[in-house]
Amino acid sequence: MSVLRLEHALLDGRVEDDVLLTVEDGLIAGVSTGPSVGGVSTGSTTVAGITMPGLANCHSHAFHRALRGRTQAERGSFWTWREQMYRLAEELTPDSYKDLAVEVYSEMRATGITAVGEFHYLHHQPDGTPYDDPNEMGRALLAAADEAGIRIRLLDTCYLAAGIGRQPEGVQRRFSDGDADRWAERVEAFGDERVGAAIHSVRAVPREQLGVVAGWARRHDAPLHVHLSEQVAENEECLAAYGVTPTQLLADAGVLGPMTTAVHATHLTETDVRLLGESGTFACFCPTTERDLADGIGPSRFLHDAGSRLTLGSDSHAVIDLFEEMRGVEMHERLATRQRGHWSAAELLAAATYDGHESLGFADGGRIAVGQRADLVTVGLDTWRTRGAGATAEALVFAATGADVVA
Amino acid sequence: MSVLRLEHALLDGRVEDDVLLTVEDGLIAGVSTGPSVGGVSTGSTTVAGITMPGLANCHSHAFHRALRGRTQAERGSFWTWREQMYRLAEELTPDSYKDLAVEVYSEMRATGITAVGEFHYLHHQPDGTPYDDPNEMGRALLAAADEAGIRIRLLDTCYLAAGIGRQPEGVQRRFSDGDADRWAERVEAFGDERVGAAIHSVRAVPREQLGVVAGWARRHDAPLHVHLSEQVAENEECLAAYGVTPTQLLADAGVLGPMTTAVHATHLTETDVRLLGESGTFACFCPTTERDLADGIGPSRFLHDAGSRLTLGSDSHAVIDLFEEMRGVEMHERLATRQRGHWSAAELLAAATYDGHESLGFADGGRIAVGQRADLVTVGLDTWRTRGAGATAEALVFAATGADVVA
Repeated sequence: MSVLRLEHALLDGRVEDDVLLTVEDGLIAGVSTGPSVGGVSTGSTTVAGITMPGLANCHSHAFHRALRGRTQAERGSFWTWREQMYRLAEELTPDSYKDLAVEVYSEMRATGITAVGEFHYLHHQPDGTPYDDPNEMGRALLAAADEAGIRIRLLDTCYLAAGIGRQPEGVQRRFSDGDADRWAERVEAFGDERVGAAIHSVRAVPREQLGVVAGWARRHDAPLHVHLSEQVAENEECLAAYGVTPTQLLADAGVLGPMTTAVHATHLTETDVRLLGESGTFACFCPTTERDLADGIGPSRFLHDAGSRLTLGSDSHAVIDLFEEMRGVEMHERLATRQRGHWSAAELLAAATYDGHESLGFADGGRIAVGQRADLVTVGLDTWRTRGAGATAEALVFAATGADVVA
Repeated sequence: MSVLRLEHALLDGRVEDDVLLTVEDGLIAGVSTGPSVGGVSTGSTTVAGITMPGLANCHSHAFHRALRGRTQAERGSFWTWREQMYRLAEELTPDSYKDLAVEVYSEMRATGITAVGEFHYLHHQPDGTPYDDPNEMGRALLAAADEAGIRIRLLDTCYLAAGIGRQPEGVQRRFSDGDADRWAERVEAFGDERVGAAIHSVRAVPREQLGVVAGWARRHDAPLHVHLSEQVAENEECLAAYGVTPTQLLADAGVLGPMTTAVHATHLTETDVRLLGESGTFACFCPTTERDLADGIGPSRFLHDAGSRLTLGSDSHAVIDLFEEMRGVEMHERLATRQRGHWSAAELLAAATYDGHESLGFADGGRIAVGQRADLVTVGLDTWRTRGAGATAEALVFAATGADVVA
């Protein structure tokens, strides 16, 4: 058992002073606050700064990190960026991917992230043949997470088509299992409780196979993530092929619900927002990627008010800094509306901590509370960025950066 | 004389490897590149990372730094933020302002900024009476810059009115000299070559007095800065009172020109853009402040293409990180247009270095070239953010942060 005296701690969205924490077997066994705590010192370690639950990075494509600083040389769209990303995807092997992922997950740990949702679709050899162990690439990512000391939900992604009605092309052969049943067979054989499910998008999984993935996730009580309406082009393609929006398609196929996360959710109709909200589907925003890729600004607040809890991801890893993601949600709303104050700091911290954890199926993480895992991080209050900003939730969201995480 | 071997250096918008630099009396006396440089070692110091000209922060209100993390608690507009800022402005004394400014300028130095344009209007005592030395507040800022080791252009600001046709109210009495002639007298008495001029805005200086400030600046060959069209409300007020846009008003009064900087330039007509561009007026964008204050997204690229060179400022200091400002310009254009690649890294670096210096009247800064001041900074390539991103201009703009400045 260890006893920590936290100078400041984030409890239920507020920063409290002088918090005494007992930790046993990696779990929080006691939390007490109040004036008496200041006097306790025997056997306790004092932690300066603001201690908070470790952050949950709910949308990661680890290999995209290798593109940082390298996709900016030319004018272009999301789709030209995607070409560069595909060239990179062609080259990776289980060994090189593991080495890269150790770096990426270590960067996450250094910046205060203790849990990651890895949206993983680079399954097979370059010509599409499975590795001897068809889950070798996924296992490389799990091993990388272990090595970096980060908790992982491997969102094993079903990715079958280049577009609606189009066979996989080029490097996409590495992504495809052929059909959703074979995806389910492979994932079933994985045999690791850290595996969850993902549908790449309505472009990449045919309508009639969406239910197979959703069914697997439901049977295993596993989180299910899906890219949704990041690009207007996806909406147009879906409307042309099926006559409904991507959200409606997912709703009809039984994909939405409280174990499901819609990633991006940028270009939505009012009905889409209602469908997502009423089903309790999480909405994972990735502001630093969404601005980098010129996706646009999604209706984060409308989604929240409709019932979709917000979560956050660093996605392409152009930036790995969940503090930037938190304030990015609010800043983008400000740019879009010319009004401040859409999101409170407490709400954005909830997105980055316990709502994020819950969307990954980690209900035992993201709060400083008895019975929760003691996956805690500390933000220094004497850095160039944080000094003078106060020991408050607002300072965490609007002043701190990943570089200010001291432990 | 000192000799530096730079592993990588930013020269003319490109990062070159193995650059040999000689420095004499604080000036760059020699720059050589090429394969022979690698062999030189006798008496030279090797500098790892990318060495670049120190950054110019062209728009600073030092005292706003005290609001960081403190103005986010409530919904509101630019104008509610301004109320909080005014409450702070009421309390400052020359001593407390100097102490605060030393901290702020030190934060700038630590994040790679070597020159600052301080837009200074907190001139007088709380009731509006001048201090015994009417320039005591300005001198406190100059002393703070000296103590922090940053080069300063004190943009002494003429601020006479609460709005068009309205007397100064409350704390604004600290800002006002009564009229522009008395502003000019006070500035004339300053007797420090680091002093330049500023017009707060068309709201705060009556039309008929704009020419007095512009004339003083012209006679002294001094930079002249002015807030321009940050808010739609300013445009509306100007149109209602004078029947022209703020830009047209400044043009008619002879304020625009190649020694002038228009700060923000957010809400402009096509004619405004042409007037600014054809006069060679600089446009100083402050993206991290403009998003924080929900100002909107200005037409940075149109201004550039019309002839206005871009410069950058951290303004309210919600963030002090010129790397964020550089990429902020591009990212905001991406959000507004859903297209990538409006600005090249080299162009954004020019804005943050030599164009910025020139807009402050520092033509001897901002380039690694013979005869320039050796105000250099170095970005590490082995930080969490920069590693693997390459030794390129793109890595500086799109991967680095102020926290990655190592010297």
